[in-house]
Amino acid sequence: MSAATISFARGAPSLDIVDVSGLAVAAQAAFAADPAGLTGYGTAVGYGPLREWIAHQHDVSPDHVIVTNGSMQADAFLFDTLVQAGDTVVVEAPTYDRTLLALRERGAAVLAIPLEADGIDVGALERALSAGAAPTLAHIIPNFQNPAGYTLSLQKRRALLGLAAEYGFTIFEDDPYREVRFSGESLPTMLSLDPARVVYASSFSKIVCPGVRVGYLVGQPELIAQITRLATNTYISPSMLAQGIVNQFVRSDAFSAAIATVKSALAQRAAALGAALARELPDARFQIPDGGYFMWVQLPEDTDGDALHAAALERGLQFVKGSDFLIEGGASALRIAYSGVSVAEIDEGVRRLADAYAAVTARADAAA
Amino acid sequence: MSAATISFARGAPSLDIVDVSGLAVAAQAAFAADPAGLTGYGTAVGYGPLREWIAHQHDVSPDHVIVTNGSMQADAFLFDTLVQAGDTVVVEAPTYDRTLLALRERGAAVLAIPLEADGIDVGALERALSAGAAPTLAHIIPNFQNPAGYTLSLQKRRALLGLAAEYGFTIFEDDPYREVRFSGESLPTMLSLDPARVVYASSFSKIVCPGVRVGYLVGQPELIAQITRLATNTYISPSMLAQGIVNQFVRSDAFSAAIATVKSALAQRAAALGAALARELPDARFQIPDGGYFMWVQLPEDTDGDALHAAALERGLQFVKGSDFLIEGGASALRIAYSGVSVAEIDEGVRRLADAYAAVTARADAAA
Repeated sequence: MSAATISFARGAPSLDIVDVSGLAVAAQAAFAADPAGLTGYGTAVGYGPLREWIAHQHDVSPDHVIVTNGSMQADAFLFDTLVQAGDTVVVEAPTYDRTLLALRERGAAVLAIPLEADGIDVGALERALSAGAAPTLAHIIPNFQNPAGYTLSLQKRRALLGLAAEYGFTIFEDDPYREVRFSGESLPTMLSLDPARVVYASSFSKIVCPGVRVGYLVGQPELIAQITRLATNTYISPSMLAQGIVNQFVRSDAFSAAIATVKSALAQRAAALGAALARELPDARFQIPDGGYFMWVQLPEDTDGDALHAAALERGLQFVKGSDFLIEGGASALRIAYSGVSVAEIDEGVRRLADAYAAVTARADAAA
Repeated sequence: MSAATISFARGAPSLDIVDVSGLAVAAQAAFAADPAGLTGYGTAVGYGPLREWIAHQHDVSPDHVIVTNGSMQADAFLFDTLVQAGDTVVVEAPTYDRTLLALRERGAAVLAIPLEADGIDVGALERALSAGAAPTLAHIIPNFQNPAGYTLSLQKRRALLGLAAEYGFTIFEDDPYREVRFSGESLPTMLSLDPARVVYASSFSKIVCPGVRVGYLVGQPELIAQITRLATNTYISPSMLAQGIVNQFVRSDAFSAAIATVKSALAQRAAALGAALARELPDARFQIPDGGYFMWVQLPEDTDGDALHAAALERGLQFVKGSDFLIEGGASALRIAYSGVSVAEIDEGVRRLADAYAAVTARADAAA
């Protein structure tokens, strides 16, 4: 290994698991098949054929779908439409840092409910609701959650929908990792279980590549129409060029092969990470996820996360501190993204992490 | 001619003047040249090589530039950053309807200053300023204005910059049509005359195609950094795929040929429109523009614009009413977009317009 910095921070695929040549072929096919659609303005609902493909995947009609420039833009439109300042919004703790930021910017009151290995603590949510919490929205990342890597069980999916019906809130099912499950059986989306209670978001970042910036929302037609008006007034229409290329790619034989490549690499990387942590850092507690990009690593509670982060950086290793994904706490946890690193980099990165951890704990012991 | 509807409404190029095969070649070149850059997230400033190309065009360093998903998205970011509810913003009257909407949505007090054939009435603006108007921003479309087709003279560019310096407001130079001048000499941008007073926006919609949705802002680095933070929080990054393809296209030999094709078609269409109006509709007053997509047609003041619009639709002709581009007035004017129609369609469309006009005025005469 060289001494080059290793990043466990970036939730992005490495280039070797992106089907660049398949995308280049899709681009040619897209220009040939629909030059007018690819080069014209289009409308804010997105590129028609891709919208139809997505609708078909989710067994809804196209008027339930809007395709956007990445799913974070979709989230922004959704929050602008559904979240008023002062509204209570349920989030998982920990959760995606950009969601916390987006909600804070809009003046939402964030109600953070602990996340367990089988998903959000539905009992804790129920207690909060019966004690008077009145959320308008609950943001849930059901599969291989970012940052924890955990997956919401089927039982809890049903329980959550029950609470949403009883207390009258909408579930925002934020599900970009669903298609990159490398272990276990796929669970039904909450959208499929109760379409009227759920707005669903996903993207092509994990199954095509992030640079296309193509995401989407699935929801009730009235809500989608409202968001479409907002999208029209924001940018007229999203990139027809990018969406047209994605459309050709997902309809080609290359697509299933590309997903298989991604899954196999992620499975290998997650396993290598688990093995390296067990070998090098026996103090770490973690669970190898069934899919996705991330593993949550809990160190003993007295571990100084800031010091560990700094010591790792000195050794050429980047990760994101657990505290970045929580309103409070998380100082002794970290998120490791294994999506963008090779097995060799994982081994070397964990060695650096263990070395940083030893240095930080030795310092703490000396001070005690 | 068939009886198919003719659209003088859409400010978009017809497919025959888009270099589809050149774009397909650019896509291949982009994937070959920089697969990591095209498929990765990138950052909110936009695709690096395209940002550099734009900076070079405007003789600034890249930190003056952010590349966005279309220039309307750039406008939205700019307004979100610079316009607070209650702020006074100067606009031209008439002006782009989406700008009026965006300002109204943000609670701006719109100060509409009449547009003349050589650009905004600088004397009227000066009188408003000396009478106490204190705008934070002035939105100006300097070349081949939408909807009027007029161009701001060099003398007025300098006068506007003088007023901006004296009264302390920023000029938002919204300039998507600059490169599609087909007659006369190009004038310097206000940005080049006084970079500190101007934020400049443009896009590749008119010189590549709208479907790429690639626009940009040029301004002072502090402002660009502020807008970049907003962009990061909105969508992480714009489409690297679309921007990477545009980058290859504008750096290839195909680019100047593509612009020449567009200019020549627009010149022909504008001339055909002028000739057809002179022949078929002698009551119309208009000026053939030196570039761009639009011509403003003024009919006698007692013309009922709504009735004319309806009568045209009945005859299979769409246009946008002048009143859509003004806070008040414009009922007897219309905007004709000649960018998306062939010479044959222009001839037939103007015949339908003249027929609709004859029907509306006959009805008015009968009622009188």
